[in-house]
Amino acid sequence: MSKKISIAIDAMGGDNSPEKTIAGIKIFLDKYKTKDDFILNIFGKEKEIKNIVNKYKISSNQINIINSNHVVSDEEKPLTAVKNSKNTSMWDCIQHQLDGKSDISLSAGNTGVLLVISRMILKMINDVNKPALAGLWPNENGMNVVLDLGANIECSDQNLVDFAELGSALFKSLFPNEKPKVSLLNVGSEEMKGTEMLKIASQRLRNLSNQDNFIYQGYIEGNNIMNGVSNVIVTDGFTGNVALKTAEGTAKFITNNLKKSLTENIISKISLIFSYFSLKKFKDKLDPRKYNGAIFLGLNGPVVKSHGGIDSIGFYHSIDLCYKIIKGDLMSQIRKNLNHSKSVKE
Amino acid sequence: MSKKISIAIDAMGGDNSPEKTIAGIKIFLDKYKTKDDFILNIFGKEKEIKNIVNKYKISSNQINIINSNHVVSDEEKPLTAVKNSKNTSMWDCIQHQLDGKSDISLSAGNTGVLLVISRMILKMINDVNKPALAGLWPNENGMNVVLDLGANIECSDQNLVDFAELGSALFKSLFPNEKPKVSLLNVGSEEMKGTEMLKIASQRLRNLSNQDNFIYQGYIEGNNIMNGVSNVIVTDGFTGNVALKTAEGTAKFITNNLKKSLTENIISKISLIFSYFSLKKFKDKLDPRKYNGAIFLGLNGPVVKSHGGIDSIGFYHSIDLCYKIIKGDLMSQIRKNLNHSKSVKE
Repeated sequence: MSKKISIAIDAMGGDNSPEKTIAGIKIFLDKYKTKDDFILNIFGKEKEIKNIVNKYKISSNQINIINSNHVVSDEEKPLTAVKNSKNTSMWDCIQHQLDGKSDISLSAGNTGVLLVISRMILKMINDVNKPALAGLWPNENGMNVVLDLGANIECSDQNLVDFAELGSALFKSLFPNEKPKVSLLNVGSEEMKGTEMLKIASQRLRNLSNQDNFIYQGYIEGNNIMNGVSNVIVTDGFTGNVALKTAEGTAKFITNNLKKSLTENIISKISLIFSYFSLKKFKDKLDPRKYNGAIFLGLNGPVVKSHGGIDSIGFYHSIDLCYKIIKGDLMSQIRKNLNHSKSVKE
Repeated sequence: MSKKISIAIDAMGGDNSPEKTIAGIKIFLDKYKTKDDFILNIFGKEKEIKNIVNKYKISSNQINIINSNHVVSDEEKPLTAVKNSKNTSMWDCIQHQLDGKSDISLSAGNTGVLLVISRMILKMINDVNKPALAGLWPNENGMNVVLDLGANIECSDQNLVDFAELGSALFKSLFPNEKPKVSLLNVGSEEMKGTEMLKIASQRLRNLSNQDNFIYQGYIEGNNIMNGVSNVIVTDGFTGNVALKTAEGTAKFITNNLKKSLTENIISKISLIFSYFSLKKFKDKLDPRKYNGAIFLGLNGPVVKSHGGIDSIGFYHSIDLCYKIIKGDLMSQIRKNLNHSKSVKE
């Protein structure tokens, strides 16, 4: 790709913005200072942004600040979003992308509004019925793509097949040296398990399985999501949302209890001196900021939602995700997968 | 209760049985040696069981060994279970319970077969449409009851209302000093979230909420299951099964990585000397053997399924669970809750 990777960033969304988002941009610029293959288009209140850019001593010809007069409110409802969100930093990002001036948009703002206006402006890919929210989730060997995480609470077998194609394309764009291995989340691994809809989706995925697009591995149970045998986990948005949040809650419960145990008395506190670096590595591996960014797939262009409450390091990771998605040419991977899907007689 | 608590135990189900189950019974008898308010009816191959009873030097007038000539195979399918399972130790347990000679049955054998024959022999409670599998799940303040864990992959609002009544009754029987606080598992906490079916169930639970039966607290998201604010978590069997197994997988992933970190070099190994007792307490709290036993609710009598792969300590915990369920008079609690449910004009 000789053209520069162009990322539209809504600087105004999420807690402590634009301070947090600009601090995240600063981290990105520092980490990528040897690269000149990208441009960051920063949308929001120009004066406010410029002040913070100066405060962080950012001087780069790879940023482009574009004024937006308004900001999407956290209270805005998806139903009234289209009417009320014009001329906001979020809307202007997506419009910039539609106009071909950015390849991808990133916002830490109101999720419901972002999904609605992205879909309205960018429109669905012709062959896809419903868009999906995909996330990254660590496993024993590396990383999973999991989708849908909540865009669609009810899904058909066609939706799940689409999600498998979209999720595999995302996996290939992010991890070009690995093969996407798809599993359907279910309550058991035997063919007879689950709803009729899941059984139909499973049979269709089996027919579509090949070396170039994705290898279908059958059903997976919740306890095996992280064992690394599969790396693209497909489910409906209700189940995916519950599974992801349950994993987050479990991780928090365990690490809180571990922290309590290791600080409960003077002897255990001494142990921290000896285990400091090991525990730091352990903590780093599980750091949720590394997995920040849900990718909205199925539109004519990718949109990334950063967690609203995340800090600047988390926001940096979502900019990094945007860069890698475009570097890995996600939209070509999606087109390739969907063409394969159409060409196979199931 | 002046009558003794009578527990029917299938000694033959699960891995390493009957050695494992008898070893579990031995632990139970040792822990409860000051109590004479129970009797354990042990079903299986009499000669084999008696040999192991002698090996473990169990001499108690509180056990009652009853011969069953056959054992349910792990490969047996629920469809053919009724035809093939007569005269097995599992079947004989449930029959003993139906005859009024036991109050509860326990097996570590084939789950599908146990559910089918329990339902066929004991029959559903008149006012309940579908039975549910309930489990215990730790939270910050104590313990949750979570149901359904997989008996019904598709549920109606009526089923969820029944599960709330059954789960609250179980909670009251196990924790008589605490109030059951019910939440419906959903993808968000706002009223507008989730499927239409969930919204109807939520409205009905709100109408049924009272101080005597259960307090309804609205929706709960996966990340809050373990925060201790609610203690009876209601969901359909598909979502519940995925959530439970995802939590198990996450816990395993984290503890494996922690173990790796704390043994990776000599310095971190030294830390283990100082943190040994603290980490042991931490490990004990999370020990899955403590939560062993899924309770089959909605039949005219409770049936407990122990994990098949669990060891004797885990099996002991499931006998303990049976004892506590009957001690807490589960069936009266269920009748009381269901009568309340019928009397309220929703």
